[in-house]
Amino acid sequence: MIVLHHFPLCPFSRQARVVLREKALSCKLVNEDYWEQPRSLLYLNPAGQVPVLVDNKTIVSEINAILEYLDEKYRTTRLLSDSPEENAEIRRIIGWFNGKFYNEVTRYILNEKVVRYFTKSGTPSSEYIRAAKSNLNYHLDYIDFLLNKNKWLAGNKLTFADIVAACQLSVLDYLGDVPWDRNLAPREWYSVIKSRPSFRDILNDKISGFNPSPHYNVLDF
Amino acid sequence: MIVLHHFPLCPFSRQARVVLREKALSCKLVNEDYWEQPRSLLYLNPAGQVPVLVDNKTIVSEINAILEYLDEKYRTTRLLSDSPEENAEIRRIIGWFNGKFYNEVTRYILNEKVVRYFTKSGTPSSEYIRAAKSNLNYHLDYIDFLLNKNKWLAGNKLTFADIVAACQLSVLDYLGDVPWDRNLAPREWYSVIKSRPSFRDILNDKISGFNPSPHYNVLDF
Repeated sequence: MIVLHHFPLCPFSRQARVVLREKALSCKLVNEDYWEQPRSLLYLNPAGQVPVLVDNKTIVSEINAILEYLDEKYRTTRLLSDSPEENAEIRRIIGWFNGKFYNEVTRYILNEKVVRYFTKSGTPSSEYIRAAKSNLNYHLDYIDFLLNKNKWLAGNKLTFADIVAACQLSVLDYLGDVPWDRNLAPREWYSVIKSRPSFRDILNDKISGFNPSPHYNVLDF
Repeated sequence: MIVLHHFPLCPFSRQARVVLREKALSCKLVNEDYWEQPRSLLYLNPAGQVPVLVDNKTIVSEINAILEYLDEKYRTTRLLSDSPEENAEIRRIIGWFNGKFYNEVTRYILNEKVVRYFTKSGTPSSEYIRAAKSNLNYHLDYIDFLLNKNKWLAGNKLTFADIVAACQLSVLDYLGDVPWDRNLAPREWYSVIKSRPSFRDILNDKISGFNPSPHYNVLDF
């Protein structure tokens, strides 16, 4: 029995959910309002962050630990490779999107629009949101650049790199903040990922207080 | 032939250096003033960050990618385990120190004291440094807590978890910012790590403009 403690609009939580589905593992989802630092969450993860994966007696937190754990433990539908060189590129791209992209784009938009709403801590900073949207443009161009070299972000098959990047984007897309008209290749790539059964749950997410953008769950957007 | 592009006081660069030595791999070090975003570095890593490992034709950036690459490719002296459950804990602790600890402690002290000096961008913010030092206390307590359960941070043998945490601390220790009197166990653990041959190069680092703290390279401090 796998339990995932998550928040629906957390990009890291989404990555764990999609990977579980890619590996055909069922799990029970437990919603965590992590900004309230509930005791039950701190007990599982002293860092107080989601996602936390509980697989019988094994408790896993930190997104890299969760992704790597799932790929080591459940070896059908591998999302890494057997080649250290290919894995180096997959993990470089994971680092790009969960580090750089998150810190320059998702974190600002999520904190300003969503966390502020739930914690009732004032109006969003339009300055931060504008900066994040500006940063997003060059990240879309970088995705475009990668897709001009390969069919998928890290090579010729779907890997963690694609899931990680698509989940970061999916949060922004829910909020209507992705300028999809900017590049063709990222839009087509995201459309293919959206069509995967593993993404279906995420496209059906409804977060109270926030309506998804009109095209959010449209596969051919 | 392995080349490591690094900055001596970068905690992530130090992790790569120590791991290379633990695995008895020789490498050529290339110093990068990464804050100047030199073209040669951007060519290797579009994120413009150190460290970057170049192993013949394989270019690896992002610290997780580098650590995992070295452990997959050079399998003597493993620093991960064969058990997915043990690896989950090792990687959780990597995430703690390279994410939470770095963002709450090292980043502030490094940026305020060192990067400001090299970029000639004003005097250090005493407020940021004070906040970072205050955060450091509870991280030392957390190391103490982990060492009360096991001999090493993630279990009964040295792993990436210890190297990652010790390298983050080593940067602060160079600058004289670690209150070693606070807890006994972290001090003894760090003393043991300092005594390893893999750490020797780091203890001999001299950064122009900054003298190391008097006890920095003393093994029995």
